[in-house]
Amino acid sequence: MRVTFLGTGDAGGVPLYGCDCSACTRARADADFRRRPCTALVEAGDTRILLDAGLTDLTERFPPGSLSAIVLTHFHPDHVQGLFHLRWGIGKNIPVYSPPDSEGCADLYKNHGLLEFRRLSKFEPVTINNLVLTPLPLIHSKATFGYAIEDTDGQRFAYLTDTAGLPPRTEAFLKNWRPASFALDCSYPPQSSLPRNHNDLTLALAIAETLAPAKVWLTHVGHEFDLWLNNNSHVFPRQIVVACDGDVIDV
Amino acid sequence: MRVTFLGTGDAGGVPLYGCDCSACTRARADADFRRRPCTALVEAGDTRILLDAGLTDLTERFPPGSLSAIVLTHFHPDHVQGLFHLRWGIGKNIPVYSPPDSEGCADLYKNHGLLEFRRLSKFEPVTINNLVLTPLPLIHSKATFGYAIEDTDGQRFAYLTDTAGLPPRTEAFLKNWRPASFALDCSYPPQSSLPRNHNDLTLALAIAETLAPAKVWLTHVGHEFDLWLNNNSHVFPRQIVVACDGDVIDV
Repeated sequence: MRVTFLGTGDAGGVPLYGCDCSACTRARADADFRRRPCTALVEAGDTRILLDAGLTDLTERFPPGSLSAIVLTHFHPDHVQGLFHLRWGIGKNIPVYSPPDSEGCADLYKNHGLLEFRRLSKFEPVTINNLVLTPLPLIHSKATFGYAIEDTDGQRFAYLTDTAGLPPRTEAFLKNWRPASFALDCSYPPQSSLPRNHNDLTLALAIAETLAPAKVWLTHVGHEFDLWLNNNSHVFPRQIVVACDGDVIDV
Repeated sequence: MRVTFLGTGDAGGVPLYGCDCSACTRARADADFRRRPCTALVEAGDTRILLDAGLTDLTERFPPGSLSAIVLTHFHPDHVQGLFHLRWGIGKNIPVYSPPDSEGCADLYKNHGLLEFRRLSKFEPVTINNLVLTPLPLIHSKATFGYAIEDTDGQRFAYLTDTAGLPPRTEAFLKNWRPASFALDCSYPPQSSLPRNHNDLTLALAIAETLAPAKVWLTHVGHEFDLWLNNNSHVFPRQIVVACDGDVIDV
């Protein structure tokens, strides 16, 4: 199984519009430091699943027939906004799996075009060609699922964003399931009070310590966390990596 | 007053995802034939107003402070989707004028960030620096305003999309107001039955004939209309022009 981080940014992204902090200035000068909307591509054999659809150039990145399915973590605009354009295309329908959310986002349900929405249920695995995904409830301001993803070789990866901490059943599932690695929401540097909706570094490291996988990729990174990383000679435990747009993991 | 058509496409744009018609194939091969989400920039002196915000790269096109205001025709995603990202920026608020629409689009009102939404009322002019805009109700599936726009020299331009026909009071206003030129929704080639929500060429030409301005720019063009234009040696009256992305009018 191969995972490509197509986007590792929070809703505002890096550079943040109007911000002149050193992280944003660097990203404006050098595209390697940009962070686009949080998105990952998971591939196994000829199965290609897009996790979230916040990139606005999906029609250019993914020619018709190149995606087995899109799987959404939740319906906030930065995770679904690329569907507003894609849906009007013609040809074969694209399955879009999502948490149960009666609202969705804007008029996506009403005018679904070639998108075929399919509702998932928590902890009920779905098989998409070569991959089995188990939806794991997260803690966010809208119904949100992370995903435990297993390929036919038994390789295991989890994708856990957007969330602030983990619900007890999700934590218990992951402790038992033991993924080799996972991607984890880490939007903020350490905060003085408990953050809402997203992990700060303190919460993210606590989750990493509890679950103790071989590798944790921090994603959904905001400019303040990038700035903090620039200004602090923080040494992460060996298994913690801050993901960048374009990073590829072979699980 | 200068008007730049930044986007002249319908919601699906040209090329349409998955479509291999000759209009879409041409646009895929040659970016000059692409049609992005329908958007115009109106400039007069140092006043710069963006009409609609469906372009998804607004943060790159318009550095902080470069827009006097954004004015929305309505809250369909292809007219507002660029705001989802822009709003999270920092710095000076950006005024966003719109028709009264209690829903808006997705969570734009709730999480408005640096956008400062201001509701307009039909036929009640608003002055934005060097320009006076009068909101004109249109006929669409969501509350939609066209705009009669006048600069300090008395030059007059109207922007009339999205609409299928014109309401009587809007038509009467425009007959009396006599803009030198206007942009007009023309999404489809001639249809066999009366189109809904958008003009076809038949409706657009009828409006042009009734109001008889010096120039009409057809916009919000779908791929079927481009295909029809390729396949039909249609001769337009001299005052009718099909707008292209990047076209500039000096009114």
